Amino acid sequence: MVTIDDVVRHALERGFFFPTAEIYGGLAGAYEYGPMGVRLLEGIVNERRKRFVFTVDFPVYEIHGSPLLPRAVFEASGHLEKFNDPMVQCKSCKSVYRADKLIEEKLGIDAEGLSLEEIGKIIKENDIRCPRCGGELSEPRRFNLMFKTYVGPVIDESSEAYLRPETAQNIFIAFRRVVNVFGGSLPFAIAQRGEAYRNEISPRRFLIRLRVFRQMEVELFTAPEQVREFSPLERFYDRKLRVLRKEGKEEEARVRDLRGKIPDTILYYAALESELFEAIGIDPNKIRFREIPEHARPHYSSFNLDAEVELSFGRVEVAGNAYRTDYDLKRHAEHAGISMEANYGNKRIVPHVTEPSIGIERLIYAILEHNLEDDGRGRKVLRLKPSVAPYDVAVFPLVKKLRPKALEIRRMLSESGLRVRYRDKGKIGKMYAWADMIGIPLAVTVDYDTLKDGTVTIRDRDTREQERVHIRDLADRIREILKNNRS
Amino acid sequence: MVTIDDVVRHALERGFFFPTAEIYGGLAGAYEYGPMGVRLLEGIVNERRKRFVFTVDFPVYEIHGSPLLPRAVFEASGHLEKFNDPMVQCKSCKSVYRADKLIEEKLGIDAEGLSLEEIGKIIKENDIRCPRCGGELSEPRRFNLMFKTYVGPVIDESSEAYLRPETAQNIFIAFRRVVNVFGGSLPFAIAQRGEAYRNEISPRRFLIRLRVFRQMEVELFTAPEQVREFSPLERFYDRKLRVLRKEGKEEEARVRDLRGKIPDTILYYAALESELFEAIGIDPNKIRFREIPEHARPHYSSFNLDAEVELSFGRVEVAGNAYRTDYDLKRHAEHAGISMEANYGNKRIVPHVTEPSIGIERLIYAILEHNLEDDGRGRKVLRLKPSVAPYDVAVFPLVKKLRPKALEIRRMLSESGLRVRYRDKGKIGKMYAWADMIGIPLAVTVDYDTLKDGTVTIRDRDTREQERVHIRDLADRIREILKNNRS
Repeated sequence: MVTIDDVVRHALERGFFFPTAEIYGGLAGAYEYGPMGVRLLEGIVNERRKRFVFTVDFPVYEIHGSPLLPRAVFEASGHLEKFNDPMVQCKSCKSVYRADKLIEEKLGIDAEGLSLEEIGKIIKENDIRCPRCGGELSEPRRFNLMFKTYVGPVIDESSEAYLRPETAQNIFIAFRRVVNVFGGSLPFAIAQRGEAYRNEISPRRFLIRLRVFRQMEVELFTAPEQVREFSPLERFYDRKLRVLRKEGKEEEARVRDLRGKIPDTILYYAALESELFEAIGIDPNKIRFREIPEHARPHYSSFNLDAEVELSFGRVEVAGNAYRTDYDLKRHAEHAGISMEANYGNKRIVPHVTEPSIGIERLIYAILEHNLEDDGRGRKVLRLKPSVAPYDVAVFPLVKKLRPKALEIRRMLSESGLRVRYRDKGKIGKMYAWADMIGIPLAVTVDYDTLKDGTVTIRDRDTREQERVHIRDLADRIREILKNNRS
Repeated sequence: MVTIDDVVRHALERGFFFPTAEIYGGLAGAYEYGPMGVRLLEGIVNERRKRFVFTVDFPVYEIHGSPLLPRAVFEASGHLEKFNDPMVQCKSCKSVYRADKLIEEKLGIDAEGLSLEEIGKIIKENDIRCPRCGGELSEPRRFNLMFKTYVGPVIDESSEAYLRPETAQNIFIAFRRVVNVFGGSLPFAIAQRGEAYRNEISPRRFLIRLRVFRQMEVELFTAPEQVREFSPLERFYDRKLRVLRKEGKEEEARVRDLRGKIPDTILYYAALESELFEAIGIDPNKIRFREIPEHARPHYSSFNLDAEVELSFGRVEVAGNAYRTDYDLKRHAEHAGISMEANYGNKRIVPHVTEPSIGIERLIYAILEHNLEDDGRGRKVLRLKPSVAPYDVAVFPLVKKLRPKALEIRRMLSESGLRVRYRDKGKIGKMYAWADMIGIPLAVTVDYDTLKDGTVTIRDRDTREQERVHIRDLADRIREILKNNRS
């Protein structure tokens, strides 16, 4: 069984991630993508874009906005008032803790959404003390999770700006422009991907709770009645989802049977997510969708169906699907003193919003954990799907003397559009092990026979089977294997 | 002649850019990429990656780091001490100005790099006053251009963090990890693309001086002697560059003849940049490389050859090519108390760094200005190269009745891998004009003959020529035209 420590070690040693500012002791809650991580990220982004942007039955507009936004945006969005966590500080050693999580850990009860008063009472009654030094804890207080700074040389409220805690707000504040430029008959969607920032009180668990992270979000704008009756959902009617309803137990059900219980637009994105997660190599048996009880929903949401993935240390949310209603557009309309409408038939209405919000780093963690395996000989193999593998194929010369021929084959494969990695360090067995560890699905070995008859060996990472192929058929054969592996 | 106002209007109206937080009066110095801007950005990123990362004769590792970095990084890099501009404030209306730029505007002299004392003296002697209200100006002071915030709930120097003013620092602080994981025999490079932030005193001119912007940077690590003798430069020996030397006048010279006067590694990236800029549609006659005099160089640089582009309002730097020597690695080694070495032959040495740093938004501005034209009938045409056009081809039905056939052709072209935009609003002439304005190079029109004989019309944006093609040959013919146009 792979543990989080195995994943962290592998990710660091194989160049997927580095701790940010590691040489200065790190920045808690931030990681740098290493060269292998960049490619894994790219694979996820492509697979998501294909499904959520390019092959969709209604217009999807992509934008790319500023992560730094003025105070007015978060006054309107409610984040200034409501986006906070309860914290306590140790009176002796000054350590700070997220109070609800501390209660959960100590007492095993769900403390999310409790008032400061309730939290203070629980801490006092159960004599919860500082886990580090045993000292007494302060009264709980609210801590806003947004990073604040000032724009321009004058420091006052008018120059206050915040790093966005979700990419969504750029979309809401650009909504009017998009409608004006592109028409905007409902339904349509605006998509964005980028960095988001949360000043978490206690970041933890590698890529799971970060302060600097990346989101892929879509805001779907529809008429209110389309939320319950959304025709693009039809193609997913027969798809099965594992769902934990608010009141019920976990069940696997067809989308068609979940209609009426869960909004159509939410089901639409849950279905797309389950497709995406499988395509990038998350174990389908470890995906479930959970309806979130009211007290645990974000302040803007009136329904939440979150995607959770089972990991070695428990279930973790990897996507939140929120029915934001007209909350955001109405708030911004009020605060900016403008209208926020789109065309629906012959009317102008304030649209309702459905939002699938995917956390990229959590997905990456899940991919790494679900695909990292022991090969039975004490070595690790990363069984990444071709869509998210750092390279399509590795090229190795059996001995250094064969280098020119191997480089020639590498160039040929590159020019055919494949993503190729060349290496000639160490014996062939070691090179296979190296390719297995970073997740390259296929390796091509160039040997003495290559010079004689023009054939090479293709070795499959997962089956370890080898086949002999002529160079002229090599690129096509590689593509064929990858395609079969992909589906 | 296209002016900046024309470019701004076109970019806003056609969905390339929106002012950030426009509904709240905007965030000065920030813009959102609209749907067309996202695709233009994508084209630039791909073309740059092809040249600077994928087809390079030495290893280039890509990373993707956190834009928020702890104080220690910028203490070491020198940005805390030296990354500032002189500012003055009006004593009456409180407006703030960048003092050196104000002097430049008022007196037409280059004030960059002057001391506060010198600046104060010039202002006093020339009685320079507030351009807004005529009020008296304060003594000049230094204003640090980094955005500051605090990480975690405790506010003190140890929790200070800054948004990076250049992406480069992530690379330097990840250097050791990259060497450890990937070997790191010189030369090798680390590349990164992402947001950078500068709290400019007076952001201005649309995409030219921004507070939130994007960079594509490479740090090339070599031995000091490789800076002057860099064999990958050989393939560019015959390439011509227009260069303005520090002491001399502007001349067009072959790379081979510039060797010895300008470091090889700097010439290497200047050549790559001139290739890139032409490939994305910047007018080659408006590109020049300028050697920067010492007082105007960044604090870390001992040689700078910047790429400048001629625009309607003057020349603007779009890329800085800096010879950073061992400045950054040595500073970080000292501050972190570690070694920063790589392998050179059988030795371990502290490498020297050459850095091409490209500002994405300035490139985009130049592309828009150089490619926006009047079609002679009072309408704008955006003659984008296919590599940066938002779509490869538009598909229009001549009348709405032909919609099903047009949609079928659109799907066929999409599935062949082309980027297709369908539209059926208004008359065919209007649709051509619409496609011209967002820069789609080709348009396919489906008419009644299509139903009879399976042919469609391909219309070329730039020549306005039309040709009749059978549907079965359509995708191939489009690709052929785009390929010719690209080269």
